[in-house]
Amino acid sequence: MSIDDGLVVATITTSLDGFVAGPNQSLEDPLGERGEELHEWLFSATEPASADVTGEILGGAAVIQGRNMFGPIRGEWPDDAWKGWWGDDPPYHAPVFVLTHHPREPVEMLGGTTFHFVTGGIEAALERARAVAGGGRISVAGGASTIRQFLTAGLLDRLILSIAPITLGAGERLFDGVELGGESGIRLTPVQVFENAAATHVVYDVGR
Amino acid sequence: MSIDDGLVVATITTSLDGFVAGPNQSLEDPLGERGEELHEWLFSATEPASADVTGEILGGAAVIQGRNMFGPIRGEWPDDAWKGWWGDDPPYHAPVFVLTHHPREPVEMLGGTTFHFVTGGIEAALERARAVAGGGRISVAGGASTIRQFLTAGLLDRLILSIAPITLGAGERLFDGVELGGESGIRLTPVQVFENAAATHVVYDVGR
Repeated sequence: MSIDDGLVVATITTSLDGFVAGPNQSLEDPLGERGEELHEWLFSATEPASADVTGEILGGAAVIQGRNMFGPIRGEWPDDAWKGWWGDDPPYHAPVFVLTHHPREPVEMLGGTTFHFVTGGIEAALERARAVAGGGRISVAGGASTIRQFLTAGLLDRLILSIAPITLGAGERLFDGVELGGESGIRLTPVQVFENAAATHVVYDVGR
Repeated sequence: MSIDDGLVVATITTSLDGFVAGPNQSLEDPLGERGEELHEWLFSATEPASADVTGEILGGAAVIQGRNMFGPIRGEWPDDAWKGWWGDDPPYHAPVFVLTHHPREPVEMLGGTTFHFVTGGIEAALERARAVAGGGRISVAGGASTIRQFLTAGLLDRLILSIAPITLGAGERLFDGVELGGESGIRLTPVQVFENAAATHVVYDVGR
């Protein structure tokens, strides 16, 4: 049992100037220019986060993610060839519910990850994730627009922001159009921090 | 002796979307709309930071600040009436070197704060601050443009960012035009965190 079993927890990495992807995203550069630098805390050879910290941040008994986190394809699925950005053994090791407007049969990968495709929006995805999570954490694994939808719908219990010590200057803003604090009714309260040399990971409780 | 004696340490509070002041700054609203919310960690009646943490973050044997941090006046000093935003007993308790283009005699306040006016730019201010700091920390107490000048000139040893859990959506960007990471040659490394419920305070070493 973890302290956040049953909670809906979003995780994403942001630059110090509030971007979760750099400018000019493309198939070759899905995170935009310099966007890969955001994730040095995960992939750096010299100072990656420990497996424990990575598990605390990214772990989930079930995962929900936006379409862009699964692939670059727009419109109907052209065939069954695309199986995600994540290789044959994706890092989720759990059922992953991909938000899409286009139905597709589930795709079973190695290591316990199965991609399911949900066309009913975030509420439907959350219902399906809860049904298989066995009371464990439900991870909302980006991207930014999916996290904004969960935040503004009041469906998020926690947000874990990994703050990379860089600026990107332009790109996709995590909180584009989302007011936090003030009269928005959405209050974040920092409750825990994981530190490492490549990023600062702040756990926020989301309240109203 | 503190571990950062002799270091040049900038401190500022930012929103999660990278703003250090809200939109529409004015004489009545020097931090812009909702800008005061940034500083709830200092002034909140319910969850202020402890005096120890506040001292660690804001303390300095000598202080350097931009003109806007001292007052709203532009051009020549009209008279001696304006003595800063900070009341008769400013929170600095140390010599404060105010960057300005317009000379003025020093202004001695209660509690050990004296405002000195420096017209030679950041290098001149730093030289004067070092001369009186007795080997102690030199605090660069904002605003954003002053911190950007120190960062890009390579004169900053540490940056302490107090990250308030709010968004402002518009206003003054802390890192406007400043690239961190990438090929900029400026590398921030988080080395320490002070947590409280109203903000997360991250101490960055500034390297090249």
